[in-house]
Amino acid sequence: MERLSVIKIGGKVIDDPELLITFLESFAAIRNKKILVHGGGKQIDRISEELGVEVKMTEGRRITDSESLEVVQMVLAGMLNKNIVSRLQALDCNAAGMTGADGNSISAIKRPVKNGIDFGCVGDIEKVNSVLLNNLLNLDLVPVFASLTHNGAGQMLNTNADTVAAEVAVGMTANYDVDLVYCFDRPGVLRDLNNPESVINEIKPEDVEELKSSGTISTGMLPKIENALNTLERNIARVILMKATSLDEYINGDISHGTIITK
Amino acid sequence: MERLSVIKIGGKVIDDPELLITFLESFAAIRNKKILVHGGGKQIDRISEELGVEVKMTEGRRITDSESLEVVQMVLAGMLNKNIVSRLQALDCNAAGMTGADGNSISAIKRPVKNGIDFGCVGDIEKVNSVLLNNLLNLDLVPVFASLTHNGAGQMLNTNADTVAAEVAVGMTANYDVDLVYCFDRPGVLRDLNNPESVINEIKPEDVEELKSSGTISTGMLPKIENALNTLERNIARVILMKATSLDEYINGDISHGTIITK
Repeated sequence: MERLSVIKIGGKVIDDPELLITFLESFAAIRNKKILVHGGGKQIDRISEELGVEVKMTEGRRITDSESLEVVQMVLAGMLNKNIVSRLQALDCNAAGMTGADGNSISAIKRPVKNGIDFGCVGDIEKVNSVLLNNLLNLDLVPVFASLTHNGAGQMLNTNADTVAAEVAVGMTANYDVDLVYCFDRPGVLRDLNNPESVINEIKPEDVEELKSSGTISTGMLPKIENALNTLERNIARVILMKATSLDEYINGDISHGTIITK
Repeated sequence: MERLSVIKIGGKVIDDPELLITFLESFAAIRNKKILVHGGGKQIDRISEELGVEVKMTEGRRITDSESLEVVQMVLAGMLNKNIVSRLQALDCNAAGMTGADGNSISAIKRPVKNGIDFGCVGDIEKVNSVLLNNLLNLDLVPVFASLTHNGAGQMLNTNADTVAAEVAVGMTANYDVDLVYCFDRPGVLRDLNNPESVINEIKPEDVEELKSSGTISTGMLPKIENALNTLERNIARVILMKATSLDEYINGDISHGTIITK
């Protein structure tokens, strides 16, 4: 099957103009079919603050009320998405910015209230419209997703960008050999957190228990690895955690600043 | 040829939630192929003010510096466009929100400095990508344009929504019999501005001189009529100026709250 790369960039990449440009130049150079997913970075906090929209947290997690959703929509789908799309167009990459509402590409349900916590306008993904995405890819368009979905009843929903990338990737596996690539400002999984050269280049599912018990996988990295294992179970070919500025290594198939998780 | 309706809604329709919903319900019910174009309304001023972004004017015209452009992008492409798209999705209309950067659908050049006035990040449209728009329409998608374009070199450009609608409409005439419909909070051209019942239902190009000299066409309406005549010269079948809440009349082919301008 043809390869499809679903690539997610994190907030720290988006916040750093030089990092972002370097990343986008490499992204534009990927020859096989591709989809980009981005969240927001500090811009959401900056605009929230300037608009006097209070950032509400419960038990360490952000609550998206309708005022916050307005800011998230504005920053993700308006400012960042269009800046990224216009920049990719300048790099001869035929980007088309989207949210899950556009073309009904990703539908979700509002996260149910649990243990008395109402996360507000937050979406748990129900369905990725792979037919539409495949049609867009066949028009040689490059979908660029801001991490927002909708509930099909007129409500936009804020959705975790890692999850959007994973669900889009899994949704496309019927037609493509899918790589799910998470790009950070740092390399992948490190043996020694203080030594950026100590990247573990390949992890197999059977290695994970040992890496956990030896403490090699840190608390912050753990959910990412567990999500990666989960997507491998759902027919993703490879999950790659890597440095955004090293994306050329992915294109050349020789990743030394990243971790490939594969069966 | 098949009919395509290119419909533009003005700021006053967008600013009034009830008016907007009534309009969108009718828009969703249009059976032939269709494209929606929207600008912003008071929301751009409100967010500008709240963010402390000064609205700069020169000789009565708005200047779009990079700060203002950020606000325009956020409000048009982020907040309003996604609210409209998600609402249309709830009405079983497969809307896909876009700017001119997305899929390189509308490219423009920054308006040249003239008589010492630099309008800033404002675009004059160069090319509408009719091949892409036709492909999207053939996927049964309904493009919903926020009135922004790009210069192909990484710069988003603020663009007059009436012009976006006119250029998109003209760009599609090779494949479709195109109606260009401008929807307002009031009916079309009135014989008597104080009498909303005095709508002139049909205007032919040869009628315009008389309507001008008799003072029937008011100063505010004049540029719209002149644009309409201009698009008729460029193969548009009909230009219709009508009340947004009367769009059902357009669907039923019996417009009594609007003006049809045709050859």
